[in-house]
Amino acid sequence: MILTVTLNTALDITYRLPALTPHASHRVTEVTERPGGKGLNVARVLAALGHEVTVTGFTGGATGRAVQEQLTAVPGLVDALIPVTGATRRTIAVVDARSGDTTQLNEPGPTITPAEWTAFQEAYEGLLAPASAVALCGSLPPGVPVGAYAGLIRTARSAGVPVLLDTSGEPLRRGIAARPDIVKPNTDELAELTGSHDPLRGAQDARRRGAHAVVASLGAKGLLAITPQGRWRAVPPTRIHGNPTGAGDSAVAGLLSGLELQLPWPERLSRAVALAAATVLAPVAGEFVRAAYEELVGRVAVTREISAA
Amino acid sequence: MILTVTLNTALDITYRLPALTPHASHRVTEVTERPGGKGLNVARVLAALGHEVTVTGFTGGATGRAVQEQLTAVPGLVDALIPVTGATRRTIAVVDARSGDTTQLNEPGPTITPAEWTAFQEAYEGLLAPASAVALCGSLPPGVPVGAYAGLIRTARSAGVPVLLDTSGEPLRRGIAARPDIVKPNTDELAELTGSHDPLRGAQDARRRGAHAVVASLGAKGLLAITPQGRWRAVPPTRIHGNPTGAGDSAVAGLLSGLELQLPWPERLSRAVALAAATVLAPVAGEFVRAAYEELVGRVAVTREISAA
Repeated sequence: MILTVTLNTALDITYRLPALTPHASHRVTEVTERPGGKGLNVARVLAALGHEVTVTGFTGGATGRAVQEQLTAVPGLVDALIPVTGATRRTIAVVDARSGDTTQLNEPGPTITPAEWTAFQEAYEGLLAPASAVALCGSLPPGVPVGAYAGLIRTARSAGVPVLLDTSGEPLRRGIAARPDIVKPNTDELAELTGSHDPLRGAQDARRRGAHAVVASLGAKGLLAITPQGRWRAVPPTRIHGNPTGAGDSAVAGLLSGLELQLPWPERLSRAVALAAATVLAPVAGEFVRAAYEELVGRVAVTREISAA
Repeated sequence: MILTVTLNTALDITYRLPALTPHASHRVTEVTERPGGKGLNVARVLAALGHEVTVTGFTGGATGRAVQEQLTAVPGLVDALIPVTGATRRTIAVVDARSGDTTQLNEPGPTITPAEWTAFQEAYEGLLAPASAVALCGSLPPGVPVGAYAGLIRTARSAGVPVLLDTSGEPLRRGIAARPDIVKPNTDELAELTGSHDPLRGAQDARRRGAHAVVASLGAKGLLAITPQGRWRAVPPTRIHGNPTGAGDSAVAGLLSGLELQLPWPERLSRAVALAAATVLAPVAGEFVRAAYEELVGRVAVTREISAA
């Protein structure tokens, strides 16, 4: 079983309307809702690939119930979210039908009490026991200490469970120091962490800060991996056009899938790049096109990275 | 007991943020939620005035449960909403903290099936029996026939229960023909119905179309009432500044309150105007300032309207 942690789960709502005009009244023509937060996205992709996956984090209020109802419908996915008093946040993406441009409104999320944070940490320790890997994903809700991921990484390492960290800012900086097995920053997150806008230098710096392996996502250019077993670049076979929302989460799912199956790094990276590309191609943000994934996975170019650094 | 009908209930969400910029990502700084839809607003004001009030209409999904949880907390208010498969709509008001300007996003509401509409009509008939008055408020959700209010008015009149109609467009046009006791259009709704931009002419026309009494809301200028007992204008004693959201619903509550207490028209109109003004003064949209209401109600100027028409 793979465990994914989403401390700031969300109900992702998409509104379609002709065009958003500030200070006007709009009738929304189409409404869609899905569970959101990076770890839940990762878990859905893993479940679709046939993995057993358990999700944890926090859930609360009517929005939390709506998230849980949709998760229950996913075969292979077990809901181990911890109830809290506050309500799970909403994110609203307002898509202009004319241009396709999106305006994003993100609620901050519920304030987690010290007792709720303690209850989560206890449940997390129990969930690690049967886990083959754990992914810690996304932002922290108010009330959770900024060093939260560092503590969760140490607990996973004590339990002998490989741990992947996908976050940004100070939680990433603190988390890396606790020596996670894998971090997956994008170029912006890497630059913010290390000060370097060169992904290779940044990834090397991130390893020196404590990450055993760094897999940097370079957008349409694929992935750069700096690992104890070697360095690789993995590039999709063609330029992919579409909606990149969720592509990074699908890449994380690919890395975890390959990790659980104990595949060598080049195959893990092929999976990650093909899943990300198949997600960009999907008409619904965060879904992936299975046929595209199966066609692309054998055609990802994985090359050894020779560095002068 | 006063019955209010809200066929298109809503969860009204207010987001505060520095300023809304299309195609950018925003972190919402403050989130508030309250039950919405005109009939629910009317009911809350009536309950605050000490009336026993029952609300009906439709509720569904996680949003419907959130609405019902908040209604349960209102003393004197009984929830008789009918469950449906679709989800209660959300309305989102995005308030720019800098300018106070609001951008409104309204979901269309759930599609009501013929079976759900039949179930509502049966429940409505039962709820009329103990009612001293009924208010039919707001827009119709998809699936409800456009002549819905006309049917509900005939049922109320057969049951001998006075009925107030507050809607717009074609549902208002059809509803008026079924001879409601009171309609409460604003100037725009009256102009759309009658083609006249003169409120007095419009209100007279609306009476000819079937309404026994017409109470036209003229915004800051108060109310104009054309009734079988006479014609009056009711004007607040001072110019009131604030947020007019919900002021019309508070005016409806004032009319119903006076109707249940069998007050003469001038006193009903004083209540309606003072409640509307006390709502404009409230910091939270749709609430009213009780002290302001109590201070204003004796100072509303109600004058006989002498017309040359």
